Amino acid sequence: MTRYVYGFNDVIDTPEPRLLLGGKGAGLAEMTRLGIPVPPGFTITTEACRAFSATGKIPEGLEAEVDKALASLEENVGKRLGDAEAPLLLSVRSGGVVSMPGMMDTILNLGIDDATADGLARVMDNRRFAFDAYRRFLEMYGDVVLGLDRNDFEDAFNDVKSGLGDPAMRDQDVPAKDLQSLVGRFQNIAKSAGKPFPGTVREQLWGSILAVFESWGNPRAVVYRAMHEIPDDTGTAVNVQAMVFGNLGDKSSSGVAFTRNPSSGDKLLYGEYLENAQGEDVVAGTRTPQPLTAQASPPGREDRSLERAHPEAFAEIAAIATRLETHFKDIQDIEFTVEEGRVFLLQTRSGKRTAHAAVRAAVEMVAEGLIDEDEAVLRVSPESLEQLLHAQLPAPEVLEKRGILPLASGLPASPGAAMGIIALDADEAERLANDGKDVILVRRETSPEDIHGMKAAKGIVTATGGMTSHAAVVARGLGRSCVAGVGDLNVDYQSQTVTVRTEAGVTVLKPGDVITLDGTNGLIYEGALDVEAAAKVPEFDTLMGWADERRRLRVRTNADTPRETRVAVSYGAEGIGLCRTEHMFFAEDRLAAVRCMALAEDEEQRAKWLDLVAPMQRTDFEGMFTALDGKPMTVRLLDWPLHEFLPREDAEMERVAEALGVAVKVVRDRARNMAEVNPMLGHRGVRVGVTAPEIYRMQCRALAEAAVACSKKGISVAPEIMIPVVGLAEELELMATVVRAVVDEVFEAAGVQIDYQVGTMIELPRACLVADDLAKTAQFFSFGTNDLTQTTFGISRDDAGRFLPAYIAPDKKLLSIDPFVRLDRRGVGELVKIACERGRKTRPDLKLGLCGEHGGEAQSVEFCHESGLDYVSCSPPRLPVARLAAAQAAIRERRSKASGA
Amino acid sequence: MTRYVYGFNDVIDTPEPRLLLGGKGAGLAEMTRLGIPVPPGFTITTEACRAFSATGKIPEGLEAEVDKALASLEENVGKRLGDAEAPLLLSVRSGGVVSMPGMMDTILNLGIDDATADGLARVMDNRRFAFDAYRRFLEMYGDVVLGLDRNDFEDAFNDVKSGLGDPAMRDQDVPAKDLQSLVGRFQNIAKSAGKPFPGTVREQLWGSILAVFESWGNPRAVVYRAMHEIPDDTGTAVNVQAMVFGNLGDKSSSGVAFTRNPSSGDKLLYGEYLENAQGEDVVAGTRTPQPLTAQASPPGREDRSLERAHPEAFAEIAAIATRLETHFKDIQDIEFTVEEGRVFLLQTRSGKRTAHAAVRAAVEMVAEGLIDEDEAVLRVSPESLEQLLHAQLPAPEVLEKRGILPLASGLPASPGAAMGIIALDADEAERLANDGKDVILVRRETSPEDIHGMKAAKGIVTATGGMTSHAAVVARGLGRSCVAGVGDLNVDYQSQTVTVRTEAGVTVLKPGDVITLDGTNGLIYEGALDVEAAAKVPEFDTLMGWADERRRLRVRTNADTPRETRVAVSYGAEGIGLCRTEHMFFAEDRLAAVRCMALAEDEEQRAKWLDLVAPMQRTDFEGMFTALDGKPMTVRLLDWPLHEFLPREDAEMERVAEALGVAVKVVRDRARNMAEVNPMLGHRGVRVGVTAPEIYRMQCRALAEAAVACSKKGISVAPEIMIPVVGLAEELELMATVVRAVVDEVFEAAGVQIDYQVGTMIELPRACLVADDLAKTAQFFSFGTNDLTQTTFGISRDDAGRFLPAYIAPDKKLLSIDPFVRLDRRGVGELVKIACERGRKTRPDLKLGLCGEHGGEAQSVEFCHESGLDYVSCSPPRLPVARLAAAQAAIRERRSKASGA
Repeated sequence: MTRYVYGFNDVIDTPEPRLLLGGKGAGLAEMTRLGIPVPPGFTITTEACRAFSATGKIPEGLEAEVDKALASLEENVGKRLGDAEAPLLLSVRSGGVVSMPGMMDTILNLGIDDATADGLARVMDNRRFAFDAYRRFLEMYGDVVLGLDRNDFEDAFNDVKSGLGDPAMRDQDVPAKDLQSLVGRFQNIAKSAGKPFPGTVREQLWGSILAVFESWGNPRAVVYRAMHEIPDDTGTAVNVQAMVFGNLGDKSSSGVAFTRNPSSGDKLLYGEYLENAQGEDVVAGTRTPQPLTAQASPPGREDRSLERAHPEAFAEIAAIATRLETHFKDIQDIEFTVEEGRVFLLQTRSGKRTAHAAVRAAVEMVAEGLIDEDEAVLRVSPESLEQLLHAQLPAPEVLEKRGILPLASGLPASPGAAMGIIALDADEAERLANDGKDVILVRRETSPEDIHGMKAAKGIVTATGGMTSHAAVVARGLGRSCVAGVGDLNVDYQSQTVTVRTEAGVTVLKPGDVITLDGTNGLIYEGALDVEAAAKVPEFDTLMGWADERRRLRVRTNADTPRETRVAVSYGAEGIGLCRTEHMFFAEDRLAAVRCMALAEDEEQRAKWLDLVAPMQRTDFEGMFTALDGKPMTVRLLDWPLHEFLPREDAEMERVAEALGVAVKVVRDRARNMAEVNPMLGHRGVRVGVTAPEIYRMQCRALAEAAVACSKKGISVAPEIMIPVVGLAEELELMATVVRAVVDEVFEAAGVQIDYQVGTMIELPRACLVADDLAKTAQFFSFGTNDLTQTTFGISRDDAGRFLPAYIAPDKKLLSIDPFVRLDRRGVGELVKIACERGRKTRPDLKLGLCGEHGGEAQSVEFCHESGLDYVSCSPPRLPVARLAAAQAAIRERRSKASGA
Repeated sequence: MTRYVYGFNDVIDTPEPRLLLGGKGAGLAEMTRLGIPVPPGFTITTEACRAFSATGKIPEGLEAEVDKALASLEENVGKRLGDAEAPLLLSVRSGGVVSMPGMMDTILNLGIDDATADGLARVMDNRRFAFDAYRRFLEMYGDVVLGLDRNDFEDAFNDVKSGLGDPAMRDQDVPAKDLQSLVGRFQNIAKSAGKPFPGTVREQLWGSILAVFESWGNPRAVVYRAMHEIPDDTGTAVNVQAMVFGNLGDKSSSGVAFTRNPSSGDKLLYGEYLENAQGEDVVAGTRTPQPLTAQASPPGREDRSLERAHPEAFAEIAAIATRLETHFKDIQDIEFTVEEGRVFLLQTRSGKRTAHAAVRAAVEMVAEGLIDEDEAVLRVSPESLEQLLHAQLPAPEVLEKRGILPLASGLPASPGAAMGIIALDADEAERLANDGKDVILVRRETSPEDIHGMKAAKGIVTATGGMTSHAAVVARGLGRSCVAGVGDLNVDYQSQTVTVRTEAGVTVLKPGDVITLDGTNGLIYEGALDVEAAAKVPEFDTLMGWADERRRLRVRTNADTPRETRVAVSYGAEGIGLCRTEHMFFAEDRLAAVRCMALAEDEEQRAKWLDLVAPMQRTDFEGMFTALDGKPMTVRLLDWPLHEFLPREDAEMERVAEALGVAVKVVRDRARNMAEVNPMLGHRGVRVGVTAPEIYRMQCRALAEAAVACSKKGISVAPEIMIPVVGLAEELELMATVVRAVVDEVFEAAGVQIDYQVGTMIELPRACLVADDLAKTAQFFSFGTNDLTQTTFGISRDDAGRFLPAYIAPDKKLLSIDPFVRLDRRGVGELVKIACERGRKTRPDLKLGLCGEHGGEAQSVEFCHESGLDYVSCSPPRLPVARLAAAQAAIRERRSKASGA
């Protein structure tokens, strides 16, 4: 029979305990094994949850196993669940395979009823504590298990406080007898809602276990999994554990800690604690906690740090933290409780961190001998690297010199600069972002319900909560700037105002007002400030060096100007994979000539305007060759995005008409005639080359002349001419002949010998299928997977907004992710593989690349590596992402080969 | 060494002599072998032409072989080329593998120079004849070989006639001495153009042979091959033959004959001849020839028929014709010359015929025991069958009773009715047709230069020329109605008028005026007349019966209304393969409701309009089920062609606004918001089903209710519900669940059991690739190859007009044919095969079909047969095409298997 329950000290014989026990359960078991103090308990496996989800029934045998494990726990601690003489209190916590902080349910202080409450008061010798625990339990159980309205409980609590004459009284100041009467009120609330609290503690336990199982499917957990691409079918484990109490007085506390700073990567125990509090109080963000170390404390408040206030507990926690990091070889995120001076660990897990911290820790851990370089490369998420290149504000001192002072300060919860208009709730933030606005979400505190708004926002500000509050953790995970716990901020949802009271005065902000965040320094500025390019972490270059040594895939960039080319080379570009020549036309002075060319009456008139455009293209090409200094440059010949070039406004029409010397009506008619029903499938790419070859000739001449000019200056050049939107071997052959004739003529006339290649962009399904024939002409293929995705799926990216979100929405999940973001392996990927195979069959040394946004997305890059491509090409800010992803793919491949051998 | 020359009586050891000798050469050799009188000669092979085309030089050894063959010919006839005492005159004729009438060059009367002209006069005892032959030769050689302007020769001839006092004098009345002086003038014309005639007859011969070789590549031949899909690389043979003379006086004549009537299929020798004329005079259409038989002669002119005027020659020709038809087992198209009573055959080939004649002859030849049923089925071109269903005019007597009289009458050169505006030249006809106009091309006579205009026109009228004139032959081949030789018609290109003089009076027509042709009866009517459906040939049903017995592929129709369904069933439809439910919305009264549905603000409002539309759909479905009487009906759920439904005009906007109870501005804004950049790749098909499932629910409910209603009336029904534009297995699964829920509910509520299927349309490349997953849900696939072609090629059919013609143009030939007309086997075809294979792997009994225009195109149908599809579905008029093509595919497959075994 399947075993569903494991005690923390049971031996478990499986290579990946976390799959069965969840992350939290596996961590508790491992700490127990290491002899680290952990309150005893047991874990109900994820398999039990899956069985429950599938059948809706408690799996057979589970009850008996829980009874047995509970008996063993009771024996261990010498208390018994529901025993009025020695009552055992339990926590029941969820714990999935992958951490989903705050998304699923937890019940604390389970095991109290009217009988045991008195017993607990006696045993603990603390009646206030006993009834505080009792009301905490009822509040949590009522909310989580019974689904009652939490506000009813809070109203009742406020009512009690008002009865005591102080509506603002702190919870911990309410006397025992009033808490006892509060418990009675809570029970009445439940009864009158028709959902009374369970009569027995055993019912409490099973109610809680099943509530945790069910919370796997609650909407916020489903959304979180969709957002983080966590599989839906793994289920959660349930950890049942003896309670320890951080709220037993001043020598008790609860806290969280990172073994290194999750924002900067500093190797220094980093975290917060609250005296006389349970763990939930720390992460809920309702009280602002104190730092662990004196060093991290605000000046003058060092004594309130755990290090100074409770040095023994601190020392023990610090030692355990070091031991855990060394054992797990990674930054650990731990939860602890100090019960009357005794330290207990409640959780250890890999700590979420910023890209900055990830890079720094990975490199430093290699130096410390904890991990090797391969592991360091694998440790950093490629996607996160883009954060490192995020814009930053100038340092506060620099701004101060310019007379710019912050409006308020808080905790530097997630780095980077962000600027936008204020929104006070998540729905509004999302709505504004969908309208294309930059939004800063400002909340008193955030909760899991706010995630969609946080994702939509550029930055997040909260009035309460610390560095490990929900807002801070989620913002770092999402790569959003965040300033948390800005005490001077008062957010009033009723009046829709944000009031900032500082020594300097009072400022009232409203939704729609613009503010700028400095998440790196925890500062807020009024209005819009200039941002500047990111300062790189010194360890970044080391890590990228290791990555570059390991990857097989080359990484090029998409760039259309000399300036972009220079930036890209500084980010590690090994060439240009895609120069979109039509982008060269968008500058105002050029656009006019290009419009005239597009609307010219005939070839002769077009030639005149082409002559005007040619020197502009030549100059650009020269600048780019120079910036590349011998690295290859793939130039895509015009892929006419017709509708972008046609004049729309009357004034534009008039200018074009005047330039062409025709009536405005003629221009308007021509433009109307040229308008297309489906421009994506229209007269573009090579089709323009076929009907108006003089355009491609002009471009090839400009390129060849630029190559000659550079070559004569001693700059080596490696041009690759790419013909777009090809679907027929015959059209490619025809155009390649045209191209080669022009280029050869220029080179011959100049008397220079320059190697160049002619290839094609593969962006239509048919091109993939006839790749063997295309390779007879093409010396290289570059996959344009944006368009290939459009044609393979039959989805226009411009129009997808009306239905694609519904496909990705968690309630439907027809698609796990937007196929324009990550390459669809099943469909588009198969076509790419077919093209690679057939192309190389004809021409074994065919060069294969991918250009477009997929080239900068980690899993798509991995696909390219696996498919044997030679390079990917992406936009400059995605270059580090591509380099790292390529290295990780190579390492994983090597490892899997080694383990297979 | 390769042998390049074969005498007509040489034994040739090759299974397909026509490949080497061309059609004409093979026919001459075969007739020689049969002992039928053929002027002796030899054939230079197509291989020689290919060698010449490749190198531009006379192939090695060819000259010697020609010398040898010529010597043998000279010995045979006892005359010698260039011998003044006994001069041999030759014809040099082209002859490709496939007949291309009039497209390549011919030289007659070769072998005369100043010396032999006198000899010829002596030998023939006819000086006039000798110099007429001489001037004919110079005119033809000057035009064809030297490229001189034919008009210059004609002007000179007219000048001579004027000098004789009668500019309108007939050629045959010009005396010998004037012809002699004309010869001198012709020589001067050539000299002063710098291209003198050759000095020797040997040069004449080689000039002519090479001219024929070169004429393979002349533009009109290239266009003709492109139009008829004849391969470009086979080359032409050259037939060199002793001249026989039909212009030696009244006992001489030249003529052409079909062994059966090529228009009606009547088994009666059919053709025309000219007394005292060479063959070229008959086909040139400059003199109107006389019929062969008395029966075919106009009343009162029977005596001028060959049958009455020259009964012996007629009897001999008729006997030879019968023998040839029996030998070749097919209608023969022969050319003959009677030289002073002696009959010679100059050509025999398979006769081009109308669909009508083809069907009738094929069926009758089976009855006659000439061929078997398989062969009969193969004999008829599937594409030609559409002609049989062409509209016809009512019979002339019927029109006469209505007071409608013809304007003029001519020869019924190609059957069917046609209506359109007059165009007087081919370019103009083409231009107007491209603008969407129906055009009738009216010419004095047509020439190969006019082919593009004839193709573009709906019908053709000529003032001169007979049933075998260029106009008549080409029109029949193209399936265009044609009335030829309308003697009362005077076409004046100068004044751009067409004058009709009859007893009834004079009518002057101009370009742009509308006329109607009755090609079946050879009549022209002024203005536009009502046309009616075609009368079928009785033999048609017999032939289609044979076809139906032989085909494996089922044939369904695309139909959207009960009326269309009934028509289709009468054309042999075995079910509906595609009912486009959105087409049901186009009626004016429905469109308004549908527009309101499309523009409704929300689901609730939309539901109201859906309720209005539902009963209309139900009624249609009921009518279609009734017409089908148990045959399957595939109903495609809405595939929103959004832009077709949105209101455009202000008045439409206002109506919709009023109906929806909102401001016009609101409707305009919504319509603008719904407009798409690429509607083909937009929010359509299943994507609408996903975002607004209530629409599919309404449709399924209407269908299910119609099925129930029919079922209760005792009509059996077989509904198949098809979900369009699917690219993901997940979306199909979701929608199939929605569909099944609605249908099952309706059936259950009605207490009936009706089998139905749910399947999908395969019209996206991704759908083909994931077909294995789609088949988990789909019970059938129907390939929508119109859209699949659009996405595979990345070409919008709506926009292809700007570049696709350039791709198909003979000068580029990037595509041999429009892929929307014939399925592209290489690209689209591979995807179809992948989908079939993967789909059947998951579900071996998966039903596979193809719907769309390819389903009615013969070669595409053959592809479907080969790919193992179960059925094709096409528009009603294409049904016979599909049925016949499917049968031919099955027969060919059986034969090729048999020959392989």
